[in-house]
Amino acid sequence: MNLTVRGIGRLLTMTEPALPDAAVVVREGRVAWTGPAAKLPPDAPEQVLDVEGACVVPGFVDAHTHLVFAGVRRDEFVARLAGQPYDGGGIRTTVAATRAASVEDLAALALGRAATALSNGTTTMEIKTGYGLTPDDELRLLDVIAMVGARSPLRIEATYLGAHVVPEGRDRESYVAEVIETLPAAAARGARWCDVFCDRGVFTVDEAHRILSAARDHGLGLRLHAEEIARTGAAALAAELGCASADHLEHVSAEDARAMAAAGVVGVLLPTVTLSLRSQAWGHAAILRDAGVQLALATDCNPGTSWCESMPYAVQLACLAMGLSVDEAFRAATLGAAHSLRLDDVGHLGQGARGDLAVLTAEHEADVVAHLGGRPVLRTIVGGELVN
Amino acid sequence: MNLTVRGIGRLLTMTEPALPDAAVVVREGRVAWTGPAAKLPPDAPEQVLDVEGACVVPGFVDAHTHLVFAGVRRDEFVARLAGQPYDGGGIRTTVAATRAASVEDLAALALGRAATALSNGTTTMEIKTGYGLTPDDELRLLDVIAMVGARSPLRIEATYLGAHVVPEGRDRESYVAEVIETLPAAAARGARWCDVFCDRGVFTVDEAHRILSAARDHGLGLRLHAEEIARTGAAALAAELGCASADHLEHVSAEDARAMAAAGVVGVLLPTVTLSLRSQAWGHAAILRDAGVQLALATDCNPGTSWCESMPYAVQLACLAMGLSVDEAFRAATLGAAHSLRLDDVGHLGQGARGDLAVLTAEHEADVVAHLGGRPVLRTIVGGELVN
Repeated sequence: MNLTVRGIGRLLTMTEPALPDAAVVVREGRVAWTGPAAKLPPDAPEQVLDVEGACVVPGFVDAHTHLVFAGVRRDEFVARLAGQPYDGGGIRTTVAATRAASVEDLAALALGRAATALSNGTTTMEIKTGYGLTPDDELRLLDVIAMVGARSPLRIEATYLGAHVVPEGRDRESYVAEVIETLPAAAARGARWCDVFCDRGVFTVDEAHRILSAARDHGLGLRLHAEEIARTGAAALAAELGCASADHLEHVSAEDARAMAAAGVVGVLLPTVTLSLRSQAWGHAAILRDAGVQLALATDCNPGTSWCESMPYAVQLACLAMGLSVDEAFRAATLGAAHSLRLDDVGHLGQGARGDLAVLTAEHEADVVAHLGGRPVLRTIVGGELVN
Repeated sequence: MNLTVRGIGRLLTMTEPALPDAAVVVREGRVAWTGPAAKLPPDAPEQVLDVEGACVVPGFVDAHTHLVFAGVRRDEFVARLAGQPYDGGGIRTTVAATRAASVEDLAALALGRAATALSNGTTTMEIKTGYGLTPDDELRLLDVIAMVGARSPLRIEATYLGAHVVPEGRDRESYVAEVIETLPAAAARGARWCDVFCDRGVFTVDEAHRILSAARDHGLGLRLHAEEIARTGAAALAAELGCASADHLEHVSAEDARAMAAAGVVGVLLPTVTLSLRSQAWGHAAILRDAGVQLALATDCNPGTSWCESMPYAVQLACLAMGLSVDEAFRAATLGAAHSLRLDDVGHLGQGARGDLAVLTAEHEADVVAHLGGRPVLRTIVGGELVN
């Protein structure tokens, strides 16, 4: 809980300019002081971590994951490399495997992925349901998410995504009604957010409007899968409803982006999905940036379209494939992602923030972007405690 | 030297179809037997490695690296992310730092990178000179390459690349003459190959023709940096001279590719360079494949345009960005790369091949492609010895 981190070759706080030869003091889990190593307060905690010249950044905030699932989708992946397009249908494969797994097995699987995420510097993670698709199965996934939060050092934000896909054999109208009816129970079981996969072949803008409006009435924050497969008007809906985030956005228009910016909707970029789907749709980051949309980054960790627990990998692709600068990408992976979750005490190292830090393997954050296939993170600290 | 590898969930030998529940026997450093675990010979070596269901593939062959260098090119990298185009000029930055470093320091840096490559399953690596650019400095780099071969378990193929760039302050005609004059000494100091960076702004097709023809007369094998920055006719030259490989090829034409195929020139793909340079030139793999060119993969490990020691990362990008199938990419990273170096006893696990194996972290090689930002290789074996 109390920790002095010294020997920092380069410190990014996201609130001040990058600082060379720095130190950080964490007291009772919160950032108490940051500054030049030469000015380290004399009463700094005796518990010391010397990072020997490494670059230190705020712990990464992964703003969009589907961490809780069972089963593999290897056949779908291999088929996609052979040219088969993605239509979201593979979700049903994971639903069947997830329903068949016990809560304890699901928690064990998710905790393994959480450990990988922590080893890659993630300290806060949004996790969605969406592989249950019955009220009971969805609420069970919220229990698993709570277990991950309780058993792992990760800070968790739970999202109810009953509207992930219309389950096989269900009438869509009755399923939308069921999702809406499940909202109070979802909120009671720990969901702080509601999300809808609004896209061609999944849920319509009208359906998303009804679900999210009801979610707001039940006190849930709003997020939206938008414009991934095709442009459907989902981003405009996110602006209309004042969603905290609209995510994916591969097919967003400049007009959509301006509406998002005006409404304060954070744009969550998921570059690993673009790579995994081989869609080569890399231009939307520039459209969003040019419109003044605040950007966030996330892994979209899921078994079908982005098997990834590494925020540094997402940062790397955001730079090299999407064209973000190194500074923009690290901001999106920390401060921007925190803002997309309306959290003000993570994603930066200003005084009073959570003492969550990632110690990079490199002396400069640009090296983590430039060094391909390398190990990006040396140590991870959550609330002043070394967790990896 | 003698080793039984058992518990193999899936074995890729590259000579036979993939085999489930397999074992491998290495005797005196060579593959003595591969087959179903149930038929393991009773006299198999007592020294056993149980890989507990993992997928095992031949050790990767990295067919194109510039592993020996000093200095960093962070400023150039950051500038490129801000939109500055690549013209090959950054090579001179590395030349200055490399000339200033001692042979021991250069060997220590290269051995660190070699260890990273080994941990990613590479067991054979081509290494080029090219950051010396005077006869003495180039020959010194051949000594460093020999030291890497002597002090690391990696199998090394040394390439003389005096014609990497015309050094600052030198007349190009006299420099080409000097490169040609240095060829006998390079061969005597361990070079088995000669390479030329033949591209716009670097060496012309005519200059490359003169250098490579002389190299052939001195008994060196021929490789060529071709069609990376612009189409200059280098690939056609590679076909004309019967080079073992033409590398990069982002701007290759279908006609060039047909000439390469007819001449048996292996096309070495370097997808990490395309990503690092943000060139988005991913179409050449399909052009080469359609023409029937044998494909190889490599990292191009260098400080400016591909800081990467990971062949699994190159495999991943080759699939997800270039569109190779999983099978094509693994073949290119093993058998194809070995063929580009005219080596017949690495890159596969046929009887008599070197006992060089990579034990993947996954039970199927497709998972290494699908799992982004993960650790791809669990253990590496060279000549039947566990080296990582």
